[in-house]
Amino acid sequence: MPLQILKVAALVLLLPAAVGLIYGEVRDALVYLGVAVTVVVCSFLGQRIVEPRSKVTYAREGFVIVALTWVMMSVVGALPFIITGDIPRFEDALFESMSGFTTTGASILTDVTALSHANLFWRSFTHWLGGMGILVFVMAITSMGERPIHIMRAEMPGPIVGKLVPKAKETAKILYLIYLVMTALEIVLLLAGGMPVFDSFVHAFGTAGTGGFGVRPDSFVGYSPYLQWVVTVFMYLFGVNFNIYYLILVKKFSQAVRSSELWAYAAVGIVSALAITWNIRSMYATFGESLRHAAFQVSSIVTTTGFSSTDFDRWPDFSKMILLLLMFIGASAGSTGGGLKVSRVLILLKSVHREIMKALHPRSVRGLRFEGKKLDEAVARSTLSYFALYMVCLAVCILIVSFDGFGLETSLSASVACFNNIGPGFGSVGPMASYASLSVLSKLTLTLAMLLGRLEILPVVLAFAPATWQRK
Amino acid sequence: MPLQILKVAALVLLLPAAVGLIYGEVRDALVYLGVAVTVVVCSFLGQRIVEPRSKVTYAREGFVIVALTWVMMSVVGALPFIITGDIPRFEDALFESMSGFTTTGASILTDVTALSHANLFWRSFTHWLGGMGILVFVMAITSMGERPIHIMRAEMPGPIVGKLVPKAKETAKILYLIYLVMTALEIVLLLAGGMPVFDSFVHAFGTAGTGGFGVRPDSFVGYSPYLQWVVTVFMYLFGVNFNIYYLILVKKFSQAVRSSELWAYAAVGIVSALAITWNIRSMYATFGESLRHAAFQVSSIVTTTGFSSTDFDRWPDFSKMILLLLMFIGASAGSTGGGLKVSRVLILLKSVHREIMKALHPRSVRGLRFEGKKLDEAVARSTLSYFALYMVCLAVCILIVSFDGFGLETSLSASVACFNNIGPGFGSVGPMASYASLSVLSKLTLTLAMLLGRLEILPVVLAFAPATWQRK
Repeated sequence: MPLQILKVAALVLLLPAAVGLIYGEVRDALVYLGVAVTVVVCSFLGQRIVEPRSKVTYAREGFVIVALTWVMMSVVGALPFIITGDIPRFEDALFESMSGFTTTGASILTDVTALSHANLFWRSFTHWLGGMGILVFVMAITSMGERPIHIMRAEMPGPIVGKLVPKAKETAKILYLIYLVMTALEIVLLLAGGMPVFDSFVHAFGTAGTGGFGVRPDSFVGYSPYLQWVVTVFMYLFGVNFNIYYLILVKKFSQAVRSSELWAYAAVGIVSALAITWNIRSMYATFGESLRHAAFQVSSIVTTTGFSSTDFDRWPDFSKMILLLLMFIGASAGSTGGGLKVSRVLILLKSVHREIMKALHPRSVRGLRFEGKKLDEAVARSTLSYFALYMVCLAVCILIVSFDGFGLETSLSASVACFNNIGPGFGSVGPMASYASLSVLSKLTLTLAMLLGRLEILPVVLAFAPATWQRK
Repeated sequence: MPLQILKVAALVLLLPAAVGLIYGEVRDALVYLGVAVTVVVCSFLGQRIVEPRSKVTYAREGFVIVALTWVMMSVVGALPFIITGDIPRFEDALFESMSGFTTTGASILTDVTALSHANLFWRSFTHWLGGMGILVFVMAITSMGERPIHIMRAEMPGPIVGKLVPKAKETAKILYLIYLVMTALEIVLLLAGGMPVFDSFVHAFGTAGTGGFGVRPDSFVGYSPYLQWVVTVFMYLFGVNFNIYYLILVKKFSQAVRSSELWAYAAVGIVSALAITWNIRSMYATFGESLRHAAFQVSSIVTTTGFSSTDFDRWPDFSKMILLLLMFIGASAGSTGGGLKVSRVLILLKSVHREIMKALHPRSVRGLRFEGKKLDEAVARSTLSYFALYMVCLAVCILIVSFDGFGLETSLSASVACFNNIGPGFGSVGPMASYASLSVLSKLTLTLAMLLGRLEILPVVLAFAPATWQRK
């Protein structure tokens, strides 16, 4: 198992090496090549020492494997930044690498243009890998243990994770195929709008993974309205549950349009965009411009991507508050986006509704229904517990970050933005600023918050729980 | 039922009338007398029109009665402010009256010293009544329908409300007796410290109900360290579950000290106070002074009282963030304080812990235990649902208040402070500021938030749900 992961890690490290060669950055290319070789060597040495006892993977083992893989990949991913000298400090490089894999897109760089092409490419490619899942990727291209569904469950976001087809490996392949085609389509459309080749690839990776890393310090401010609209639409599309695309692919259209999560996701997006358009109408010359910026930011925040077409930190409070709420809701389950996920919010609201109905009609106890099926009580309860755990983690994170003294708005939005894998917050970590000025403690805390957010807490907690490592 | 409530309302309105007479405010005294007479007349007219169909009160009816009583009392309580001209605008007077009854202590007054003694007394006396419960008070001094326990459940805060003794009426009497004795004790100790008689009564009411209205614009800043310590201790004592005092009264000491809520409440208070003392040590001359201010503010915020001994809006972010978290936790269930309540937070944490344990040991499904007993699964689930509902209400409130454009810190802390019945927030609604500058929409929203917070949402929702009023 670890052997495959490290082999794949070495493989993907060859991509930025190639990019470095293309752009004449020979030193950087050699760094990536060196890291790739080291990883392969380590994997062979590692396999000789740790012989796996069993190939059967249970739920708990699946969680732990996923959490440890993500930590390992983030550390490996940080190495090129440090060795090339583009991000010399370890905590900064780890922050940037974790921000990439978890598709957060929060950056400690004050000037992104100073990075080499190889590093810029790598930074955004980690978004692409992390978006659909590192292990789902490994699963799609290699053979894994006997019960890969548990790994898939741990890595795919949302309260309920199912397989599209009976075999998990086939599901992983289908998911990555849809993902690849959509990414390619976006690249073509960006190129058609006159975006340079390098920028098109990088931005398509950032959109697909709902990450948010770009190549300019002002994100999408300088790009044409056409390009902004293309990215708005694609961000939104990558926030849809990929099961829907699979259903469309196999021509089960009626089943696809019956998804209540899809409708709720659409409603949230449209209502928020219109409310903000109205609220910011006096700030821009035309209605079209207001709508474009509102739609871009709503799409960017609700999918937890984090690109920006304007400095939304200067928007009125009401619009900023809508964006802050969208940060919590997040994208659909089974998409590449973060946050609580629309389906989880729906289950929470249904549970609340049932409690109220119970008080109204104490004798009629009804089960919950979701997506046309009876909802397992255990799923309802674990969703409610997840929400409580989520708020506790967030509170602790805010408390630690507040130590830096950048004001309530910054501590709060930095924590919310990292924990929900968005990227930019408000105030000192706004869309035109960076996380550079935060303390080492805050950076490490937010790095952990990104991982907790991406893997939905439990795998990380289990991986570090002493009980997991006790021998029976 | 409504007859008794209005009779009692008329009765308590005589108190500020008497205070007005004592301080030579004849006009104000007549206003209170006039309102009292009007209320009595209305109650008799009302009874002739609406003949109660049944005296039996079920859970749902209990909830609705409580919610409507609170709305009615707040409107009645606002009348003297309007008629005397001290608070001429209706929305302001209603805000102040609701803030009084719900023991919030948020004020729209920029200069509290301009109020007459009668109005100042009334304002604080509503804290005292609202703290232990208006209907619990009515229950203690009159005879009510056949199942008053449902009313008690709806009005007393916390996830589980039990009777101290078999009869609800006797329980109400015992609670108010403990409450009265403790209030009297505080008055004596304040007088002993040289506080004027009027101030002592008003502050004791504000402390007992964990309200927060005072007589000076700078709250407790100008009072001596002795008086500040007395109030610190009493605020904290009124935040303890009154069941504990009953247990002590009947000499069940061992049962009293076994309460996990009591220990958690103590731990939260002590740890927070020490952390803040350390964080603000450079702002004050001595360790003792830092500790005094830290203890005062922690006690004031965790019990949701809202008095202040210093302008804590100027404290470092870390200390402010601790206070913000304490606003959510709140005081103990069955106390006069607001917030989520310590026992509810404990149940949330236990539920979260169980979810984690389930992932670790999938086969061992264990029930939750709380306060030495097995916790009903329905209580656990309704607590989790309550938390979700609580956050949804809060989010909507923040969104509406953000419309005023006072910044994220103000919108957020104003909503949190009103919803949790605390009083002062940060920024434009900080301890040395007031809610005067907010818009009418925000004031009405926060007025509703105070009611939702005090009655713990469900009664208010039921009272306004169309299904409640449909004929079968």
